[in-house]
Amino acid sequence: MNKEQIEDWFKTLQNNICEEIALADGKGNFEEDHWDRADGGGGITRILRNGNVLVKAGVNFSAVYGSTPENILKALALEKSDFYATGVSIVMHPINPMVPIIHMNTRYFEMSNGVYWFGGGIDLTPHYIHKEDACYFHQELKTVCDQHHKDYYHNYKEWADNYFFIKHRNETRGIGGIFFDRLSESKDISKNDIFQFVKDIGKSFAPIYTHLMQKNKDLPYGDKELYWQSIRRSRYVEFNLVYDKGTKFGLDTNGRTESILMSMPPMAQWEYNLQVEKDSQEEKTLLLLKKGINWVD
Amino acid sequence: MNKEQIEDWFKTLQNNICEEIALADGKGNFEEDHWDRADGGGGITRILRNGNVLVKAGVNFSAVYGSTPENILKALALEKSDFYATGVSIVMHPINPMVPIIHMNTRYFEMSNGVYWFGGGIDLTPHYIHKEDACYFHQELKTVCDQHHKDYYHNYKEWADNYFFIKHRNETRGIGGIFFDRLSESKDISKNDIFQFVKDIGKSFAPIYTHLMQKNKDLPYGDKELYWQSIRRSRYVEFNLVYDKGTKFGLDTNGRTESILMSMPPMAQWEYNLQVEKDSQEEKTLLLLKKGINWVD
Repeated sequence: MNKEQIEDWFKTLQNNICEEIALADGKGNFEEDHWDRADGGGGITRILRNGNVLVKAGVNFSAVYGSTPENILKALALEKSDFYATGVSIVMHPINPMVPIIHMNTRYFEMSNGVYWFGGGIDLTPHYIHKEDACYFHQELKTVCDQHHKDYYHNYKEWADNYFFIKHRNETRGIGGIFFDRLSESKDISKNDIFQFVKDIGKSFAPIYTHLMQKNKDLPYGDKELYWQSIRRSRYVEFNLVYDKGTKFGLDTNGRTESILMSMPPMAQWEYNLQVEKDSQEEKTLLLLKKGINWVD
Repeated sequence: MNKEQIEDWFKTLQNNICEEIALADGKGNFEEDHWDRADGGGGITRILRNGNVLVKAGVNFSAVYGSTPENILKALALEKSDFYATGVSIVMHPINPMVPIIHMNTRYFEMSNGVYWFGGGIDLTPHYIHKEDACYFHQELKTVCDQHHKDYYHNYKEWADNYFFIKHRNETRGIGGIFFDRLSESKDISKNDIFQFVKDIGKSFAPIYTHLMQKNKDLPYGDKELYWQSIRRSRYVEFNLVYDKGTKFGLDTNGRTESILMSMPPMAQWEYNLQVEKDSQEEKTLLLLKKGINWVD
């Protein structure tokens, strides 16, 4: 398949996800902004605000091109070339602290010298970790992965643990998920196989998240839980601004700031040297924000 | 003078500033945390919370040492060596949106190979820019600078404009101030001259900020101004996490995260694609967030 087909598929994915999420939310609708990138290409940003379940949900599609940034050429020891990148990026922030934050990204990158790759990932950031939901989430991802390769879930789950990690806090952003990058064909796997895998990950997003929305949206909460939600959101901000490569790539290549930073929460709080109560739900969550937890059998 | 004398002076500066700020606040007191750095040295962090005027004010002192980080050695093309760094860092977030956020840093760095330098800066981030306050602030800094060298204010004001700049927003963090780094002796200026300059900048902090607190703390505000304050604070977060070199140095050298991130506001908000009203105070402020404004005669 060529890049136009991949781009078309990502556009369709954006449409389908927005439709399913708006339906599950029951109130919010996605506003749409079309934007152009000065150096080539552009995108469509869709944002749902102040829904029944979601306070802020962003679904970005973009297809951009131009001269490959120096840092990528340097990292790969390549000569000057042009790049083309297309993808879908999603972050959803719920109203109820019992509903987790979710993120997904699927992307395709190619250069005029013939180098190409797919990348992507999907990870869950519960404000309060419910083991049942964490197991469900990982099991769903494993099921998709297992349909493509027996090693995918194991490898990409480990990659997510390492990627979605807030080094200065010594904690993971949430319960992880899967993350993969620079996948291209090898003797075992064709370009089309990889695209099929990326498609299946993309298609899994809406059923997984609408299930978690539905299951948790009516759970009770009060000021204490809202406060904790705002603290966890500040960690989300720290990860995205300090470590996230997609954010950095976007800002470095003069992407559209409002689309890149749609991932930011509506409201976040920082409290100096916050201590959680012993045996509280907050402490139980913190104790599970680490790498290497096995959530599936 | 030797590093112990510089360190002692910074400690005294921390004490004096905390005393003067607590007095001007009238309610809050500074809590104190002593901390050690695993790789060498440590610090004293003082935080005032929920005062009459200030919601969160942090005054950090630190004196740390160890192996010089690779990136510094590389930037200066130097061989492996040990470093010693001491300084005072301050960020204050007020309750009333009419009172500006302020930041100051004074620092001294030396290496076992004999290389040393002083650095520092002080800059103001009003949520709403009042021209009178901006002129006052810059005039005070100019007065201190002029006592040491006729070019200091001009040069270090320009450096601040370039340093405190949020590239992805194409806006300055606030109205700037002064910023300088890697100052060491030359044929015109001794190490002691530079230290005297750094001292005078340090001593100017409390009179300048207590004046601005006093002048603005009782101005009226409502929900609209609080909302705008939370938006401006999110830009402060973006600058500190994406661009600030002190924050990056701290996180890279395994500094104490809670002390480094005491600069974060208590509460911040992000709104997708926020548009301000024409001719509003918010728009007037945005139009003044640019480099090269001359605030003094």
